[in-house]
Amino acid sequence: MGPHGDGDIEKIESESRRPISTVVFVIAMQAEAQPLVNKFGLSETSDSPLGKGLPWVLYHGLHKDLRIYVVCPGKDAASGMHFFFSLTSINGAGIDSVGTVPASLITFASIQALQPDILINAGTCGAFKVKGANIGDVFLVSDVVFHDRRIPIPMFDLYGVGLRQAFSTPNLLKELNLKIGRLSTGDSLDMSTQDESLIIANDATLKDMEGAAVAYVAELLKVPVIFLKAVTDLIDGDKPTAEEFLQNLAVVTSALEETATKVINFIHGKTLSDL
Amino acid sequence: MGPHGDGDIEKIESESRRPISTVVFVIAMQAEAQPLVNKFGLSETSDSPLGKGLPWVLYHGLHKDLRIYVVCPGKDAASGMHFFFSLTSINGAGIDSVGTVPASLITFASIQALQPDILINAGTCGAFKVKGANIGDVFLVSDVVFHDRRIPIPMFDLYGVGLRQAFSTPNLLKELNLKIGRLSTGDSLDMSTQDESLIIANDATLKDMEGAAVAYVAELLKVPVIFLKAVTDLIDGDKPTAEEFLQNLAVVTSALEETATKVINFIHGKTLSDL
Repeated sequence: MGPHGDGDIEKIESESRRPISTVVFVIAMQAEAQPLVNKFGLSETSDSPLGKGLPWVLYHGLHKDLRIYVVCPGKDAASGMHFFFSLTSINGAGIDSVGTVPASLITFASIQALQPDILINAGTCGAFKVKGANIGDVFLVSDVVFHDRRIPIPMFDLYGVGLRQAFSTPNLLKELNLKIGRLSTGDSLDMSTQDESLIIANDATLKDMEGAAVAYVAELLKVPVIFLKAVTDLIDGDKPTAEEFLQNLAVVTSALEETATKVINFIHGKTLSDL
Repeated sequence: MGPHGDGDIEKIESESRRPISTVVFVIAMQAEAQPLVNKFGLSETSDSPLGKGLPWVLYHGLHKDLRIYVVCPGKDAASGMHFFFSLTSINGAGIDSVGTVPASLITFASIQALQPDILINAGTCGAFKVKGANIGDVFLVSDVVFHDRRIPIPMFDLYGVGLRQAFSTPNLLKELNLKIGRLSTGDSLDMSTQDESLIIANDATLKDMEGAAVAYVAELLKVPVIFLKAVTDLIDGDKPTAEEFLQNLAVVTSALEETATKVINFIHGKTLSDL
């Protein structure tokens, strides 16, 4: 029942034997993307191939001969209007379009337009200290699930959880000495009792607002995806999530940029199967 | 801060003066779509303009000179594999890709490929009998919100709720004598305590799993959208949601088809501003 024909398998095999040439970073918040954009001297794409009149922001650049793109969902126009006379501690005016719907749209459109060899969903996350996480850790993700898609009908329940593997990168994991864990995704920054039960039932270490949606789209369009998630708040710590998130955002996005840079340097010149 | 330039306004004004020529129905479940597909004798599009190798199902046909498309997210390949040796009471093998992420993707791709004058998100929903709903009622939606995107940071909270108006159709509402109410969307079929608080705080009458995501994408791409939602289960009734949903699905989708047919007949030959 799978969508792979023999042609797909041949395509994947031949692609895994040539060096990776195009990487797309999918990043939800401008504040998470900016350090990486600065580090690699990426430029904002003016006539974006992702479509006209959209809030999406695309950056592009070259690192040696590796094409790097960073795509962000940009600011929400609807809340931006209310926001005009307000202030925020998160850089830039307006509200970043966080969550699964904008993330799935930019993933879809950037795969179609940019044909990347690999996607990297990078961002901040919450994590459990009982699972060994500390503030500022950058995790590689083993696999992803959703914790807010409860559909109590047989088989629909599994669809809702949506377990998917990240692309396996054993050499990258070892070389960069990263922590690894399962990521659980939901559209809320906070965690309801029912979210918590499902996160624990699924044995997740990390909690974010986009990962499993990015994985879903990557699987639909058959593009390998990995996840770099930097811990801004400890879910089982003693501080409120929103406060801890805002307090740690700047420092943690800098740690995320450092790891993403190491990942780019590791990827450069390698094939998918070298990872 | 809005994306509308003068050109957009002129475009919308000139479009609202010519008869509607293309309607796209966005429908999450095959069982919800089938009665409409049968009624209008629509054919499944073989070489789909929405993309290759995707599970999405597109139907097309003509009703007089009105082009009608029905797009469904199709069956989930991942859960389909597990499902192979199982059975379901919902028509066809496999699990329909319900929820906000697949709905937003098919809405995006079908707007891009089919350039509809208007979108209709049709489907089943839960509803509150205290707000005047009965099983089998077909509602027109006034506006939409999300109930499972809790982001307790100022302005992000409003972004999470994502209040959007449906395209205003006062003549359609009056002519078809439909009930009208606010729709609240979330990715779960059941309702957690926190979902319920938000649905009540937002004064919603209806609860579904796609509407607010379809509205989000329609607004991004500046296409008018209306919603027809048929009630399969009473949230404040005495039966479990999943059981009541499965029990009423067939009868209610038939009521949905009847109303959708009336809507198509009403739309035919009219301009957007006639609605």
